[in-house]
Amino acid sequence: MSDKQKRFFLSEDEIPRQWYNIQADMVTKPLPPIHPATHQPLKAEDLYPIFAKELCHQELDTEHAWIDIPEEVRDMYKYYRSTPLVRAYGLEKALGTPAHIYFKNESVSPVGSHKLNSALAQAYYCKQEGITNVTTETGAGQWGAALSYAAKVFGLEAAVYQVKISYEQKPYRRSIMQTYGAQVTPSPSMSTRAGKDVLTRDPNNQGSLGTAISEAVELAMTTPNCKYVLGSVLNHVSLHQTVIGLEAEKQMEMAGEYPDIVIACFGGGSNFGGISFPFMRHKIKEGKQTRFIAAEPSSCPKLTRGVFQYDFGDLSGLTPLLPMYTLGHNFMPANIHAGGLRYHGAGMIISQLLKDGYMEAVDIVQSESFKAGLMFSKCEGIIPAPESCHAIAATIREANKCKETGEEKVILFNLSGHGLIDMTAYDQFLAGSLLDFEVTDEEVAKNIAELDKII
Amino acid sequence: MSDKQKRFFLSEDEIPRQWYNIQADMVTKPLPPIHPATHQPLKAEDLYPIFAKELCHQELDTEHAWIDIPEEVRDMYKYYRSTPLVRAYGLEKALGTPAHIYFKNESVSPVGSHKLNSALAQAYYCKQEGITNVTTETGAGQWGAALSYAAKVFGLEAAVYQVKISYEQKPYRRSIMQTYGAQVTPSPSMSTRAGKDVLTRDPNNQGSLGTAISEAVELAMTTPNCKYVLGSVLNHVSLHQTVIGLEAEKQMEMAGEYPDIVIACFGGGSNFGGISFPFMRHKIKEGKQTRFIAAEPSSCPKLTRGVFQYDFGDLSGLTPLLPMYTLGHNFMPANIHAGGLRYHGAGMIISQLLKDGYMEAVDIVQSESFKAGLMFSKCEGIIPAPESCHAIAATIREANKCKETGEEKVILFNLSGHGLIDMTAYDQFLAGSLLDFEVTDEEVAKNIAELDKII
Repeated sequence: MSDKQKRFFLSEDEIPRQWYNIQADMVTKPLPPIHPATHQPLKAEDLYPIFAKELCHQELDTEHAWIDIPEEVRDMYKYYRSTPLVRAYGLEKALGTPAHIYFKNESVSPVGSHKLNSALAQAYYCKQEGITNVTTETGAGQWGAALSYAAKVFGLEAAVYQVKISYEQKPYRRSIMQTYGAQVTPSPSMSTRAGKDVLTRDPNNQGSLGTAISEAVELAMTTPNCKYVLGSVLNHVSLHQTVIGLEAEKQMEMAGEYPDIVIACFGGGSNFGGISFPFMRHKIKEGKQTRFIAAEPSSCPKLTRGVFQYDFGDLSGLTPLLPMYTLGHNFMPANIHAGGLRYHGAGMIISQLLKDGYMEAVDIVQSESFKAGLMFSKCEGIIPAPESCHAIAATIREANKCKETGEEKVILFNLSGHGLIDMTAYDQFLAGSLLDFEVTDEEVAKNIAELDKII
Repeated sequence: MSDKQKRFFLSEDEIPRQWYNIQADMVTKPLPPIHPATHQPLKAEDLYPIFAKELCHQELDTEHAWIDIPEEVRDMYKYYRSTPLVRAYGLEKALGTPAHIYFKNESVSPVGSHKLNSALAQAYYCKQEGITNVTTETGAGQWGAALSYAAKVFGLEAAVYQVKISYEQKPYRRSIMQTYGAQVTPSPSMSTRAGKDVLTRDPNNQGSLGTAISEAVELAMTTPNCKYVLGSVLNHVSLHQTVIGLEAEKQMEMAGEYPDIVIACFGGGSNFGGISFPFMRHKIKEGKQTRFIAAEPSSCPKLTRGVFQYDFGDLSGLTPLLPMYTLGHNFMPANIHAGGLRYHGAGMIISQLLKDGYMEAVDIVQSESFKAGLMFSKCEGIIPAPESCHAIAATIREANKCKETGEEKVILFNLSGHGLIDMTAYDQFLAGSLLDFEVTDEEVAKNIAELDKII
């Protein structure tokens, strides 16, 4: 293999100048988000109190397929983009598969994951609008780290509400955010009404993403010049992440191949959408027969076992109602290590695409994901984030099918981040003490039944 | 700055095909290492029991300026090399300096540091010779992680003795080694005579690099088909690391500049030699006026306050006697976070070059190093390893001088690794609880005086 190229890069000049907005090309557009009070379709203006205006318009834009990447954002992309497209010869050899496996390595971003692609964009738009402070929530901390650095880049103050149990269990990620200059508060906190309410009822509450979202939104709405930013689920976040797939498309061309299968792990959908949408436009517009596989954890199976229905984005029911595959906003996912995948619903674009058959989904139990991650570490040297392990597990399944059939399929997956801050999870797996979690049909049915009351 | 290129890469074809052996070009060759028993100059054969034969010859080779990189090693380099050469526009702006600052980003290697460059080479030569097992010591774990992965790549079993206090305080690095499949033992251990001796005398001994080296060497010498490997100090390690400087030379050419100053942190010398030697050959051969600055910790000041004398490489006095700048092998450096810089002596090539005035050295206190690292994190997004923080601090000193004089000097430093596994150190710095350590003149004099007894 020594004469074959292993990694593919683009020159800085070739880094995309526009993001791809799949909403413009979708045959069936996503149903509109609905105002929680009026039950009317949401207008961009309805979101102004929370998000930067430009982001509100991107969120609801179903007309423009291409959105210019601001020069200031593209300029920052150049510090870590293009990320490498890598041919995983080591993994192919270990599997003995005829498949050609490629991965897009987003773990090389300074914060260690793809999250920075949208954090930089969101921080920039806030700055442009005269905002001085941004606030967000984070679980394991990948998004919080990205936002903290992006805020520093554009001279904004960042306040991050981190789910308390993660704040205590993952001190390294908290330190990373603080190193970038962010203020990190364990949630629930006494700094907001939402936090106080929870703590008054339950002084030992360990926090949840739902509570942290409520705290961050409350802070944004009660602080002058402060906006809220979000790291996944929303359309504009996936939009920014399409820089991944647009680069990969050019890089696959350099490798002389086109993917038969595109795979990414699935939490809210931003890394999946990021790598998939640019390739999917050829399926929508030219009927190209590529398969797109979202790999979700079995413990949070919204795509494989949820329903397509309007639901709230948060636990407290404060957000607009979104048309999504969901397990119900009251669904409490088990405390798996892949914290980034513990979300009850899927973004509305992806939900529509799944409904319309443009993509498929598989679920992976925690032990299968870490088995895959460990194999990948030994073959390729990079220790993957627990989230990314799900994409690797799904890739291995497909590569093994190729071994059976002898097909030389081209598989591309997104390595969304590295797992260097998640080594305790690998420890547990190596020690045989990692748990798998099952979700019962009763639990799914109960949470979904409650959705009927909403709308 | 948006039209200016930020990062420079080489194509896989341009990755160096040879390492550069500066010994062949040195006007004054290093004094020979001396056999500890016979006091005769060491022959390559004397080292065969410990190291792979090819490495023994590389160690003492003063004839061949260029050594071919085996195709199998170069093939593995392609998975992470070339590493980016980055123009640090963010840092320049924050400092308000007219200097042009570049850094070579070795932190993007899968194991997070430059150490992999030599680990792959050493593992390969062992494999070629029919060795099945390799053993080494590690402190903080950067080298241990690199060796563990390199061993896995070439199908060797790796046993790593990790200094006990690090084993307990830095569990993430231990986990990383185990993830790659290595057997990690806290040292002192009961698995060797050397370890037993220490534990018998002092059951609560927390370990030291000296003891861990003794354990690893003993295991290698008492185990069939097992060799010892080392991550710094030795000539062949610096040789392998020259891939850094050789790449940087081409990349600086792409940037249209040539460094006036080259800076790296200094422990045993492999990352300093790696980036410096290729540039230094133009100083030796063509009289090019480049300054080379080694940045060592004030708490372990062998280059700035040590003496040039024969000394042992280890605490127990088992290794050959090396001509080095040293603080004496009994010198116990304070427990700073930059574990990779806690070594009493400098490699013999570097010692000779310093003596002959080809390079200079500065010492940095721990708080200055972390202040520099924090600034770099905020400007460039990458959180540097505590070791690399020393190079950044020295760079900032030089950039500030340029600000005073208005000179547009070109400064190149080596970012030897990232600090994601060292966040507790940043925590302490942010909390104001990081200590600086002073070394008294009496302490230096006492340890150096003991050297007179050796030879």
